[in-house]
Amino acid sequence: MNKNVYVLGLGHIGLPIAAWIALAGYQVVGIDIDKNKIDDILHNKVKIHEYFNGIHISRLVYDLIGNQQIIISDHIKRLDREPAIFIITVGINPINDSEHDLSSLQYSLDMLIPLLVKDDLIIFKTTMIPGTCEEYIAPQLIGKNVMLAYCPETIAETRAFIELNKNPHILAAADNKSWQAAADFYRSLSPAPIIAASNFRIAELAKVVQNVIRDVNVALANELAELAGMLNVDNQELRELVNTHPRVELLRSGPGVGGYCLPNALGYLQATIKETDKFKLALSELARQINLTRPDKVLEVLRRALAENGKQLENATVAVLGLAMKDYCADTRLSPALEIIRLLTESGVRIKAYDPLVEDGCEYQVQSLPYCLDGADAVIICALQEGMEKSLQEMAYYLSPPLIIIDTRDAIKTCEGVILYRV
Amino acid sequence: MNKNVYVLGLGHIGLPIAAWIALAGYQVVGIDIDKNKIDDILHNKVKIHEYFNGIHISRLVYDLIGNQQIIISDHIKRLDREPAIFIITVGINPINDSEHDLSSLQYSLDMLIPLLVKDDLIIFKTTMIPGTCEEYIAPQLIGKNVMLAYCPETIAETRAFIELNKNPHILAAADNKSWQAAADFYRSLSPAPIIAASNFRIAELAKVVQNVIRDVNVALANELAELAGMLNVDNQELRELVNTHPRVELLRSGPGVGGYCLPNALGYLQATIKETDKFKLALSELARQINLTRPDKVLEVLRRALAENGKQLENATVAVLGLAMKDYCADTRLSPALEIIRLLTESGVRIKAYDPLVEDGCEYQVQSLPYCLDGADAVIICALQEGMEKSLQEMAYYLSPPLIIIDTRDAIKTCEGVILYRV
Repeated sequence: MNKNVYVLGLGHIGLPIAAWIALAGYQVVGIDIDKNKIDDILHNKVKIHEYFNGIHISRLVYDLIGNQQIIISDHIKRLDREPAIFIITVGINPINDSEHDLSSLQYSLDMLIPLLVKDDLIIFKTTMIPGTCEEYIAPQLIGKNVMLAYCPETIAETRAFIELNKNPHILAAADNKSWQAAADFYRSLSPAPIIAASNFRIAELAKVVQNVIRDVNVALANELAELAGMLNVDNQELRELVNTHPRVELLRSGPGVGGYCLPNALGYLQATIKETDKFKLALSELARQINLTRPDKVLEVLRRALAENGKQLENATVAVLGLAMKDYCADTRLSPALEIIRLLTESGVRIKAYDPLVEDGCEYQVQSLPYCLDGADAVIICALQEGMEKSLQEMAYYLSPPLIIIDTRDAIKTCEGVILYRV
Repeated sequence: MNKNVYVLGLGHIGLPIAAWIALAGYQVVGIDIDKNKIDDILHNKVKIHEYFNGIHISRLVYDLIGNQQIIISDHIKRLDREPAIFIITVGINPINDSEHDLSSLQYSLDMLIPLLVKDDLIIFKTTMIPGTCEEYIAPQLIGKNVMLAYCPETIAETRAFIELNKNPHILAAADNKSWQAAADFYRSLSPAPIIAASNFRIAELAKVVQNVIRDVNVALANELAELAGMLNVDNQELRELVNTHPRVELLRSGPGVGGYCLPNALGYLQATIKETDKFKLALSELARQINLTRPDKVLEVLRRALAENGKQLENATVAVLGLAMKDYCADTRLSPALEIIRLLTESGVRIKAYDPLVEDGCEYQVQSLPYCLDGADAVIICALQEGMEKSLQEMAYYLSPPLIIIDTRDAIKTCEGVILYRV
């Protein structure tokens, strides 16, 4: 506990980690170069949807700052010259399928390296292109006498504090000394198992593969949802029946796959193999394509739904419910709802959008569900938020029949007065 | 318990079910038209690898026959005219991707229908082309005053008795009376939950979808195993790391997917949608293709392995270990090992094959592991059997170096004296 811990990057992963480490008794310095982010943190205006024991992360961090347990800064400045721990959560950003921008990561290293002292421990949490730690990061640290470890994150957004304490931590390191130091640090934070990985590359690969597996299984759920629709079988019931099998899990279908992690996962694998040419991840690539084109499918179903009810897409007003990238979440990064809105706009559709957790998600956003529904020719359910399912059952009160609902989340049960389309 | 139960079809599913029902106290009549099967059962020579409380199914059924708790016959003959229960496990056989042979099912119905009395209960366990119960079977029973239910099986081969008692039973029926009668019967057999399905079609679909999900996830495991091989990452360790994630399961890669259920699952879906033309199960079809072409991949790796060690495929002697369709099992139906042997034969390779659980699996089979390995230029591990992993570690004693092992099951750890290839 006598070490200072510097957390670089204060986003969806970095901020909960900074708070988690401070709660364990460490002196934490949180660093982010985004001045707006710093401003939000310092003024208790963080919008990330995470709670620790019922306390919103914004309030939690605000109080930890008040108690000097976390110091927030837009650049690294060491508190002292004693060996410290540096947690790096800064991401590698995709440019296209197999090209990536490592400049943020490099910027962090450039800030960090001149300040390093002997026996500092650097732990990367970043989702990496497999090979990055060994080939790109480690060479820059040669001769610095510091320790290097990689410990990828597996937390689900909205469950950060629970999962930081519960999920096993995969840990790879440059050498045994680094591994032991990082393991000791993690053991001081939580009772979760620490899983030794033989090398950086396999740990980096494991993290990306976890996300690809989710992506492929969502694509499969989407394919099977279309089949269910075609066979006139209720997809929600089908999933419940399928999942009574002890060795099978059919995930929920949806309007696509959003968030930062899953849609970008395949690209990290493609970047690793891009020079070989011998190899194609055919199944994973097809799955990605299926998930990417789900918004087009939603539009197709909407067009058909309107036509079957004597309306035209081009003259319609459409209510989009849920802007977040998944249910019960405030994150709109790569959200399929926003892609659906983009496609609707292109078709000249009038849009009203509603999401009680998302602020400034898009220009069409309105602040109440009744107002969003009022006058809409059709409703598209893209993501659920607390209470929305219940409100949705009451939509009949706000909308004049026929009540056309395009339900991408299997949220609505078929009921009288509703013309329900599943995608 | 006052009802007689007739089980039609005494294969991998029917025979354990017949024993299970007899053990619950019912008078069981087991029927199969295959006289060899009847002969094996009557002479305690059943090769199915199932155990009940440590007793092999062959012995168990033999004793139940001795106690008159099961009567075995090659045709249906009613014991009395009281309402009875008929369990039908006879399968629908694939002819090609979307055509199927329903003649066995029809033959069962033809035998059964003239014998039916009022209030008989017919329960189908067969994996169906979704739509079969409603469109094909139910119409043939109109006016018979009998009850009809569908309860698909989810048991894994080699775990039949455990899973019959534990796995939830999905149950659909023609009407409420049929559903209640079938549910009462199942409740008298096991404490496992009974899950009501709204209609036949959704229950049939759920069963097939369960198998398709497994098939797709094996294909994904195979694709990722190839990636791991290319990146020189240990696939066994990768899977262990990936599976520390609470919401992810990476299945084991392998030489393909065998057995009756998984390889045939997609075909039942294709048969359902074949007339529409609007719809393609692209992801599931690609997955099937990946699993179907795994034996070719094995051959490719073998050829490369031999070449890299100064040998030629055409002049080689190859030991194939494990003929079963999966580990620790005696079933060779659609076994990838047999397909690999077929490909090897085509290439003029000399083959020796070993599997202690499989009898008469192929013409190249030998009866001991040392003899199988003796003089082999390479070993292909296709499926494991009890004790084989341990023996494999000792293979160095039998084979002269270089010991080339093509390991499709991640069974062997890299060790000195072994040139290990994973597929």
